[in-house]
Amino acid sequence: MKRMLAAACLIPLCASAAGPVYTADGKLVPPADYRQWIFLTSSLDMSYSLMGNVGMHMFDNVFVEPSAWASFQQTGTWPEQVVLVKEMRGVGGKSSINRHGSFQTSERMGIELHVKDGGNWSFYDSASGEPASRIPDAAACYSCHHDHGAVDNTFVQFYPTLLEIAEKKHTLSPGYLKEGGG
Amino acid sequence: MKRMLAAACLIPLCASAAGPVYTADGKLVPPADYRQWIFLTSSLDMSYSLMGNVGMHMFDNVFVEPSAWASFQQTGTWPEQVVLVKEMRGVGGKSSINRHGSFQTSERMGIELHVKDGGNWSFYDSASGEPASRIPDAAACYSCHHDHGAVDNTFVQFYPTLLEIAEKKHTLSPGYLKEGGG
Repeated sequence: MKRMLAAACLIPLCASAAGPVYTADGKLVPPADYRQWIFLTSSLDMSYSLMGNVGMHMFDNVFVEPSAWASFQQTGTWPEQVVLVKEMRGVGGKSSINRHGSFQTSERMGIELHVKDGGNWSFYDSASGEPASRIPDAAACYSCHHDHGAVDNTFVQFYPTLLEIAEKKHTLSPGYLKEGGG
Repeated sequence: MKRMLAAACLIPLCASAAGPVYTADGKLVPPADYRQWIFLTSSLDMSYSLMGNVGMHMFDNVFVEPSAWASFQQTGTWPEQVVLVKEMRGVGGKSSINRHGSFQTSERMGIELHVKDGGNWSFYDSASGEPASRIPDAAACYSCHHDHGAVDNTFVQFYPTLLEIAEKKHTLSPGYLKEGGG
């Protein structure tokens, strides 16, 4: 029954295929296998607005493509062509033997994607997994991520295992540090 | 910028090293790399007790070793030597630019492990990642998981992407189906 621990075994076999995939007309194709990517965090009903998401309940799960995750471990920041996926899930309460708290249901309420390609970040919103057009630069997500993201336009302050790496590698953004770093 | 989608790329390179690892005196060594495993679900303050976890707030994240996850995709149930890890995380609220809801913090409050080895399931509890002794069979976790787990002693009813596979493969447990399947 005894086995040796095998470290660093999960570098994907097809790392050369990582990175965003586009349709002929420039839409982003959401990755089919993101649930096999590296999990970064989950949150419940988070909102950056004082109003909150009135009447809405959902979990967010964030995943990143494995070779980009491996790069972050080395550098404390994201490589070119990183893809992050935020999946929204329904919230269950009293069901089966659960009596308290909140769990995730089979209802996927959409996915959002954040891609760095050609040095620029882009957001995409795909309600049901269909190829998505780039959200225009005027959208608030761009300025908010630029001004408040802990590392290069991303909310690493909410990704527990990455935040400490960024601190060690001194890759925290000036805007984040100016706000007191948390 | 166009790339082909590469399916099924994440089978780990070191699949032969999967499975539980024990110390010479029979304690289970918690895997160091479980955050690179397959994410199954996250929940907030779940409790099977009518009392709840009074005064405690935490997220649970559940991960499974990748080759066991791949096996579940094919069979709808767990292979011998599967290892599942439940990680408990602290809960943050108003911090950085967040105004509502709950996010996961850097505080890891412990991990629990569930292992099938030699045909039997075992639970382990490791507060800070140290090797852990097997929890005795008299503990309530064993009878509860046996009686209410949707698939072979595990709470697949709370793992959204696995539940639909178990339904298709007809691997839901008699106890779960008798309770109405949810």
